[in-house]
Amino acid sequence: MKKLAIGVDIGGINTAFGLVDENGDLYAESVISTKKYPHVDDYPAYVHDLCQAMHAMVDSITFEYELMGIGIGAPNANFHKGTVESPANLWRFRIGEVNNDEMRRHFPLAEDVSRYFGGLRTLVTNDANAATIGEMIYGNAKGMKDFIMITLGTGLGSGFVSNGEMIYGHDGFAGEFGHVIAIPGGRDCGCGRKGCLEAYVSATGIKRTAFELMATMTEPSKLRDIAYGDFDASMISAAAQEGDPIALECFRFTGELLGRALANVVTITSPEAIFLFGGLSKAGRLLFEPTQHYLEENMLFVFKDKVKLLPSGIQGKNAAILGASALIWQEVTK
Amino acid sequence: MKKLAIGVDIGGINTAFGLVDENGDLYAESVISTKKYPHVDDYPAYVHDLCQAMHAMVDSITFEYELMGIGIGAPNANFHKGTVESPANLWRFRIGEVNNDEMRRHFPLAEDVSRYFGGLRTLVTNDANAATIGEMIYGNAKGMKDFIMITLGTGLGSGFVSNGEMIYGHDGFAGEFGHVIAIPGGRDCGCGRKGCLEAYVSATGIKRTAFELMATMTEPSKLRDIAYGDFDASMISAAAQEGDPIALECFRFTGELLGRALANVVTITSPEAIFLFGGLSKAGRLLFEPTQHYLEENMLFVFKDKVKLLPSGIQGKNAAILGASALIWQEVTK
Repeated sequence: MKKLAIGVDIGGINTAFGLVDENGDLYAESVISTKKYPHVDDYPAYVHDLCQAMHAMVDSITFEYELMGIGIGAPNANFHKGTVESPANLWRFRIGEVNNDEMRRHFPLAEDVSRYFGGLRTLVTNDANAATIGEMIYGNAKGMKDFIMITLGTGLGSGFVSNGEMIYGHDGFAGEFGHVIAIPGGRDCGCGRKGCLEAYVSATGIKRTAFELMATMTEPSKLRDIAYGDFDASMISAAAQEGDPIALECFRFTGELLGRALANVVTITSPEAIFLFGGLSKAGRLLFEPTQHYLEENMLFVFKDKVKLLPSGIQGKNAAILGASALIWQEVTK
Repeated sequence: MKKLAIGVDIGGINTAFGLVDENGDLYAESVISTKKYPHVDDYPAYVHDLCQAMHAMVDSITFEYELMGIGIGAPNANFHKGTVESPANLWRFRIGEVNNDEMRRHFPLAEDVSRYFGGLRTLVTNDANAATIGEMIYGNAKGMKDFIMITLGTGLGSGFVSNGEMIYGHDGFAGEFGHVIAIPGGRDCGCGRKGCLEAYVSATGIKRTAFELMATMTEPSKLRDIAYGDFDASMISAAAQEGDPIALECFRFTGELLGRALANVVTITSPEAIFLFGGLSKAGRLLFEPTQHYLEENMLFVFKDKVKLLPSGIQGKNAAILGASALIWQEVTK
């Protein structure tokens, strides 16, 4: 009988989910709004509506199958506890709410979802870890025991695999490579500190770099016609492809910081490969070439010319659903 | 029947070895010279003499026991392959030697030693990894699944444990935390790059700091009476204990760099604890207090006040032998 897993990707706007087999083929998919449930007390209704929609999706399948479990990718997810803890953009307190004990925002999501499916195996992890396991199960990291996944979206996420296992760490929150300090005393980061890698290497980071370079460089650039509020990272890729000097310098600088930071972390986990995933990675050689250059330039001799820098093999619109579903196959095959 | 393992610690001067049980109790120990065998072509004689001395030690035991294996800690050891590869201070080429292909300096030590013991399980790893496994089997990391060991000797070694397993990495050389760049463009490091953490945080590093501070500070100090060649790190501890301002600043600065670097790496592996081991760690609160301070000051919010900074539980003269023997118990209990 066909075995299927549900993969769920909880974003700030929408929650997308689908039914996936062990090869990463998608048999059904659907979506509900996340932002319709903005407050702490909307959480039970969110879980109820999500599970109802998942049941409807499952019921739409006409062949016989066995449902193996539900894997969920969500911000601030704790794999060990099955919880989502104090997510910045989900299920917030109402403005002026008196009882705003943060423990109320530790949501036992795995348990709550599992209950709607008769106790079915349900696992949660953060988006970047889900993408990492997706790479291992369906993508270019098949058969690799030691690799690093870097997800470049609005922020910089990461997942580390050693000895064939995801590094979750003692508290379940390992893999925050975006918050390694790239430049001490550098740019403000959303985490409250300064100089974090993701303040430079991410869609937001490269946009900040573009504005810094418009101030420090004098070259003409198409980018000078766009206001900060109207700007997104894809405009830098487009300009760089036409040889825009500021856009090209944006990528060189981004690759320099990413390459340097990766050279540091290679000394810790000695991976076989590093994968780049997500929007910014689609800039292709614009990003890969400088990253590779500065990675090798800064590499400790024992690791030189050993570590592959590769594009993710699970790009595409369903990557997040695939990644989340892979959580189940990884557990099943243990 | 009592189960025993041999632990071997290969240093540049001597090779010490002992018979150890699962509790870390030592039943016999002995030593041979390493430096009597300085050249590539001395290696076979070294292995022969070492194994003969180990057989003599084993034969000295009068009660009945089962010999479970031989664990060896050596510089540049590759756990996966059982080799020692291009060690800087062991089995070198003769000056002017014509055939100096580095592959001749990849020594299959595990296999060669095992042959002298009828194929007995023999494992090699580097000194820092051996200390790490020693901490896990006999020391303060008992029962911990995720921790970091920092060994502070002439250089800075490290071992990372995640999911209860040593991170060896793809090529067997993971855990080179001493070669994370602490200060870009900083001090020359023995690895050929600049600004590595071990150029600051190690017995040699703090000595270099003392000399830098004697130049930049004007305060009087006892340290100003000692020539660079006569100087060792214990003199800085002794001076700091008497309130010497330069010596105190040495420890503050060392702790700052170590604390900052640890805060970065905590984001990757999220350990339960970090252990400090080796000569410099014996400075106690002189080193622990500033390290703890800068670790917490630089910590990403999710990890604040969660990670313990602790002294190693296997300090003492037999630590290296214990660490090496622990390799065997870790394999046996798998």
